[in-house]
Amino acid sequence: MKIMRVEKTLVSTNRIEQLGHRPLLVVQEKIGGTRSVAIDAVGCIPGDWVICVGSSAARDAAGSKDFPSDLTIVGIIDHWEPDAPAAPATKPAASEAGAASGEKA
Amino acid sequence: MKIMRVEKTLVSTNRIEQLGHRPLLVVQEKIGGTRSVAIDAVGCIPGDWVICVGSSAARDAAGSKDFPSDLTIVGIIDHWEPDAPAAPATKPAASEAGAASGEKA
Amino acid sequence: MKIMRVEKTLVSTNRIEQLGHRPLLVVQEKIGGTRSVAIDAVGCIPGDWVICVGSSAARDAAGSKDFPSDLTIVGIIDHWEPDAPAAPATKPAASEAGAASGEKA
Amino acid sequence: MKIMRVEKTLVSTNRIEQLGHRPLLVVQEKIGGTRSVAIDAVGCIPGDWVICVGSSAARDAAGSKDFPSDLTIVGIIDHWEPDAPAAPATKPAASEAGAASGEKA
Amino acid sequence: MKIMRVEKTLVSTNRIEQLGHRPLLVVQEKIGGTRSVAIDAVGCIPGDWVICVGSSAARDAAGSKDFPSDLTIVGIIDHWEPDAPAAPATKPAASEAGAASGEKA
Repeated sequence: MKIMRVEKTLVSTNRIEQLGHRPLLVVQEKIGGTRSVAIDAVGCIPGDWVICVGSSAARDAAGSKDFPSDLTIVGIIDHWEPDAPAAPATKPAASEAGAASGEKA
Repeated sequence: MKIMRVEKTLVSTNRIEQLGHRPLLVVQEKIGGTRSVAIDAVGCIPGDWVICVGSSAARDAAGSKDFPSDLTIVGIIDHWEPDAPAAPATKPAASEAGAASGEKA
Repeated sequence: MKIMRVEKTLVSTNRIEQLGHRPLLVVQEKIGGTRSVAIDAVGCIPGDWVICVGSSAARDAAGSKDFPSDLTIVGIIDHWEPDAPAAPATKPAASEAGAASGEKA
Repeated sequence: MKIMRVEKTLVSTNRIEQLGHRPLLVVQEKIGGTRSVAIDAVGCIPGDWVICVGSSAARDAAGSKDFPSDLTIVGIIDHWEPDAPAAPATKPAASEAGAASGEKA
Repeated sequence: MKIMRVEKTLVSTNRIEQLGHRPLLVVQEKIGGTRSVAIDAVGCIPGDWVICVGSSAARDAAGSKDFPSDLTIVGIIDHWEPDAPAAPATKPAASEAGAASGEKA
């Protein structure tokens, strides 16, 4: 499972029926890193550091073997200290995003 | 799920029967990034920023457990601001592609 | 699905029985890039740019749910212009391979 | 399977029911590298170098086809010499983490 | 499937029951590259260049749908010329490992 940080909710009005009305969250492995989209199965908010499961496990974790997810949030980490050099990491910090964005992107 | 941008339709006359006549779209994680091919399940057009699901979920999302897809477009993002430094990102921009192509490729 | 280029056939006499006598092809995401091995389900030749499916879909695409493939060629692209800076890309070009080999390898 | 090193236990009070009370461990491919979370199926301790299985195999390895894991520790390596240049690697070494953290992160 | 080179056998006394006594081999995509662990289904020896299958196919290839493998060796390549610049690549070469180890690691 990956350790990721919730950035915000993603609005997608035009979506396939199987997704239902489940909220889609934008998550990042590190502040300023590449953004992915995850299904929330625990009820988290922007700024939370969470555990995301991928592969076929993401589907069951989202509630059903048929749910079309490849990334599902399965837990909120009680306390996480990200290892980015100079990142407080508890709030969205736009200025830090630029510094880190070239590393994996 | 990944956030990707639709670049264009891909023509492949010689294909396996299971793909049927489903349109194949060229998508990119960022303008100038590596290109992948996705099955369109929502009806999108070049320039759209979309949500792509991979893994085994891509198959169900494409319409059936037996469909041979590992990347299916499951939603169109209402509004997306890509984080590339100097990328307007609403149209294919050949000059930017060169600048970014070395990062993950 | 990935866009890859067929380089050549791979000879593997000592193989598991489930692979049968299916041809194994060496493919690359870009000329000079990392080489992978794919099962050919469409009948392609060296130099072709093809669509490769991975994940569990690669198995069905290869002909059966039990076939041990994680990368199967499912279509030949009618016309493909690779985005490598200075690559004609229609024939194997040994001299270009060196220049690009360090990028993702 | 990947060769990873156990760093510590991860506390996640708010988690999906299917995870039960199974311990979650933070693992790294190399000291100072990106952190992942794995389910422990063998009983290991911080500092152990372990074998982690991913994909759908992680689920069965964790004890059941329905367990939502995409990374499960399936064995402890008797003796492992990591290939990082200047890393003794038998104990958590905070000072080394900084030096290596930019490589893949 | 990936083209990898067998480095050595890996000893893991403390392992999950489902792995049985199957030999575990350390493999690398290139000399000096990141090491992975694969299940041997063909009978290979250190120095062999082999074809490794991942994803769910690794399980069937290892002998059963329930075997917990995500990387299984399915064939030995009759003749392989690795593309590393200055690598003879037929024997373990410790001195070359250092030069290449930073590229993907």
